[in-house]
Amino acid sequence: MAKNQEGLTVKKEENFSEWYSQVIDKAEITDLRYNIKGFVVIRPWGAMTIENMYKLYEEALQKKGHKPCFFPTVIPEENFKKESSHVKGFTPEVFWLSKIKGEGKLALRPTSETAFYQMYSLWIRSHRDLPLKIYQRANVFRYETKATRPLIRSREFYWIEAHNCFETKEQAEKQVQEDIQTTEEIMHQKFGIPFLPMKRPEWDKFAGAVYTVGSDVLMPNGRMIQQPSTHLLGQHFSKAFDVKFKDENGKEKFVWQTCYGPAISRILASVISMHGDDQGLIIPFCISPFQVIIIPIFNKDNKEKIINESKKIQEKLNSLGIKSEIDSSEKRPGEKYYEWELKGVPFRIEIGNREIQEKKITLFTRDTRKKEPLLIKDLSKIKKYGEEFDERLKSKANKFMKNKIINCKTKQEVRKIIKEGKIARVNFCSIAKDGEKCAEYLEKDVNSEVRGTLANKKEKTSGKCIVCGKPAKEVVYIARTY
Amino acid sequence: MAKNQEGLTVKKEENFSEWYSQVIDKAEITDLRYNIKGFVVIRPWGAMTIENMYKLYEEALQKKGHKPCFFPTVIPEENFKKESSHVKGFTPEVFWLSKIKGEGKLALRPTSETAFYQMYSLWIRSHRDLPLKIYQRANVFRYETKATRPLIRSREFYWIEAHNCFETKEQAEKQVQEDIQTTEEIMHQKFGIPFLPMKRPEWDKFAGAVYTVGSDVLMPNGRMIQQPSTHLLGQHFSKAFDVKFKDENGKEKFVWQTCYGPAISRILASVISMHGDDQGLIIPFCISPFQVIIIPIFNKDNKEKIINESKKIQEKLNSLGIKSEIDSSEKRPGEKYYEWELKGVPFRIEIGNREIQEKKITLFTRDTRKKEPLLIKDLSKIKKYGEEFDERLKSKANKFMKNKIINCKTKQEVRKIIKEGKIARVNFCSIAKDGEKCAEYLEKDVNSEVRGTLANKKEKTSGKCIVCGKPAKEVVYIARTY
Repeated sequence: MAKNQEGLTVKKEENFSEWYSQVIDKAEITDLRYNIKGFVVIRPWGAMTIENMYKLYEEALQKKGHKPCFFPTVIPEENFKKESSHVKGFTPEVFWLSKIKGEGKLALRPTSETAFYQMYSLWIRSHRDLPLKIYQRANVFRYETKATRPLIRSREFYWIEAHNCFETKEQAEKQVQEDIQTTEEIMHQKFGIPFLPMKRPEWDKFAGAVYTVGSDVLMPNGRMIQQPSTHLLGQHFSKAFDVKFKDENGKEKFVWQTCYGPAISRILASVISMHGDDQGLIIPFCISPFQVIIIPIFNKDNKEKIINESKKIQEKLNSLGIKSEIDSSEKRPGEKYYEWELKGVPFRIEIGNREIQEKKITLFTRDTRKKEPLLIKDLSKIKKYGEEFDERLKSKANKFMKNKIINCKTKQEVRKIIKEGKIARVNFCSIAKDGEKCAEYLEKDVNSEVRGTLANKKEKTSGKCIVCGKPAKEVVYIARTY
Repeated sequence: MAKNQEGLTVKKEENFSEWYSQVIDKAEITDLRYNIKGFVVIRPWGAMTIENMYKLYEEALQKKGHKPCFFPTVIPEENFKKESSHVKGFTPEVFWLSKIKGEGKLALRPTSETAFYQMYSLWIRSHRDLPLKIYQRANVFRYETKATRPLIRSREFYWIEAHNCFETKEQAEKQVQEDIQTTEEIMHQKFGIPFLPMKRPEWDKFAGAVYTVGSDVLMPNGRMIQQPSTHLLGQHFSKAFDVKFKDENGKEKFVWQTCYGPAISRILASVISMHGDDQGLIIPFCISPFQVIIIPIFNKDNKEKIINESKKIQEKLNSLGIKSEIDSSEKRPGEKYYEWELKGVPFRIEIGNREIQEKKITLFTRDTRKKEPLLIKDLSKIKKYGEEFDERLKSKANKFMKNKIINCKTKQEVRKIIKEGKIARVNFCSIAKDGEKCAEYLEKDVNSEVRGTLANKKEKTSGKCIVCGKPAKEVVYIARTY
């Protein structure tokens, strides 16, 4: 479509930021030339990938008892005001509509707690209505004042938000753990993106939450990015929005709430960044728009015959549940190889005269860049190869992250590790309010953030806080962030 | 979830409008209590149905070579101003954002021609980039001043918009016919909603189009509602947005454009209205969130055993690709029957002790309300029954519409037919500009609208216009509308 095929002019290791800008443009994931700051166009190659990501994510949520819904994009200001920390946290980021006759001030949703929960107060009456687990796939809007970056921090982005209600705090906390598990199943096991589930320090939690768990992913530039977060909202919102139920003894109680927000477009940014190489994208087999690109190698005389054979191969792949496309354009095969490698398709099938005679194809694998012959009768092996493909991407990413987490005993060590684009694991006084001063010190002095403690495993410590020297209650992870 | 299970208190034939309001509420399709006028909440039962409708529609579009994308929700005012009839047509319906630093006036998209086409001017260079066929699934916003009605006319709704570019007018006109065919394949053949593809009179076309074809569906109250419309945009927008290509001889030309907009939430309104009965919804098998509801009939002693058997049946249905759910709540079976009939699930499986002993189940079919035994080994028959189910809904809807189209020779006849909630088929002078006066006469005198001429078939006439008596160039269809 566009003429961006001049290829990447920079290596990922040498200049990640420029590599990222080039790859999302040249592989036609996004187009940044839309004429409003911070709003980007997601092109078909990006949109098809995002749709596949949504599909896997929604299937996982539905399996765990969530049901979809669609709420209005617009939320009255009065709703925001009901929960006091929420209004403080989000108001600066809100896009407002111009005044409309008969309505108060209306916001474009930055997130939808204050849209959902007034309805929950109408829908929930009895313990029989609980648990209530509902999500929506939605676009949300935040008036970012920081520099925007395509897919990473845009003023409009694409996410899922799940809003759940329970009878007890225990059930709600179990949901937070289930959400971490969902992130693990989908973002890590499927998309190949490892993360640290970080219980955030008190001063860094979601506006309105009791506590927040953010899934931190390390990007190749050594900065951590927050991926899906899940929040124990406790009864803050249920009290503000009057969401009550009658328990088995007929006693009225406020529900316990959680919410979970995987930002699909942002996760795509991590998928692109983690797996890509100097030739371009590498998209996991399980979410690639096509899993196989078929390149017929023909001349004038045998074009029809070879395209026909390609179609037969595509039919076989279809019947095996493998998504493919034939590139029968007039470009030279080399150009086509180049373009589809840039776009990150996991496998390429080359088929020419020789292949047809020998009843085989040539199979190119995007990540290993190996070519090998494959008998046409063995095409079904590509399914297994696809699983191995995703397994390789995941292992590589796991290794990348694991090697970057470094135990540090002093501020000097932290400073060094952060400079190297790694994550410092340290003893720290506290992630409650009383630890904030030490965190502020690190932010200024070491230019890094206390991301929190592991949320799915208690790490014991008997050491001292690396900043203030007081007995450390926590093991925290420190990194530079987006 | 909610306690709306008191059932419908009105018959569809007696008071359609009240029936519709009750059924969308009590079957938990929508909730109208959201606190902004014209914005409704789509509840899980509605959202799951809409998702299934999107799936079928998007598959059909992709099969015909369309690719998905996501464009920003927000459009700068300057874009609207580029095509003069478009700005006139849409500006009164636009929601605007409050002023943002560094940006001009920004609109919430009422439709996205003016967002897409500036990018098309960047993406299209050569005839090799054509045809370009791109769509998005999106929520759009219209500041309706008429009374809003849930799903039918809301201020936010859910649709697909496809925007296509071609080298020639002929190719573009062929696309308009392909779009009509897609409406036929999906809305009629799958969802069971027959329609008249109406080439709209000159005075009733889309703002910016050369001509418009609207798919008119007759609702049970005798009013026609516009469902998917497709527009030949010609070169109006390509000239305004400078969307050019070099042809094979290197000559620069403006592209020819079309757009197509099936509003999924509005089509759901027709599905609900057309197929439902006095017991509630009847959802086509192909889009029902569950195709089968399994009701285990148990007492304290055999509950576990019967629920286990139900699970085995569900597994079998799963393996057959039939979506089902088990209602194992503590309600009485009668209550459950009632609730799932209200929600329109095509089939109900009742399974109790007797059924298990006899290795069969009892199968209830929603539209015919017949119960019959089915051997468990024959469960796969439900697939065929499902197809027959959809076929019955479609045939009934076809018959409903066919019987309502009445040839009329005089204004008096038209008046009578319109009063009876039918469609008048008449000779008419012209649907070009010179016919507008006769149409205005009908609108005032007969309280009905000239909807247009058949767009996929030329109907010949040698008669005279029923209003002015001049020679009729066209056969038009006249009806009351939403």
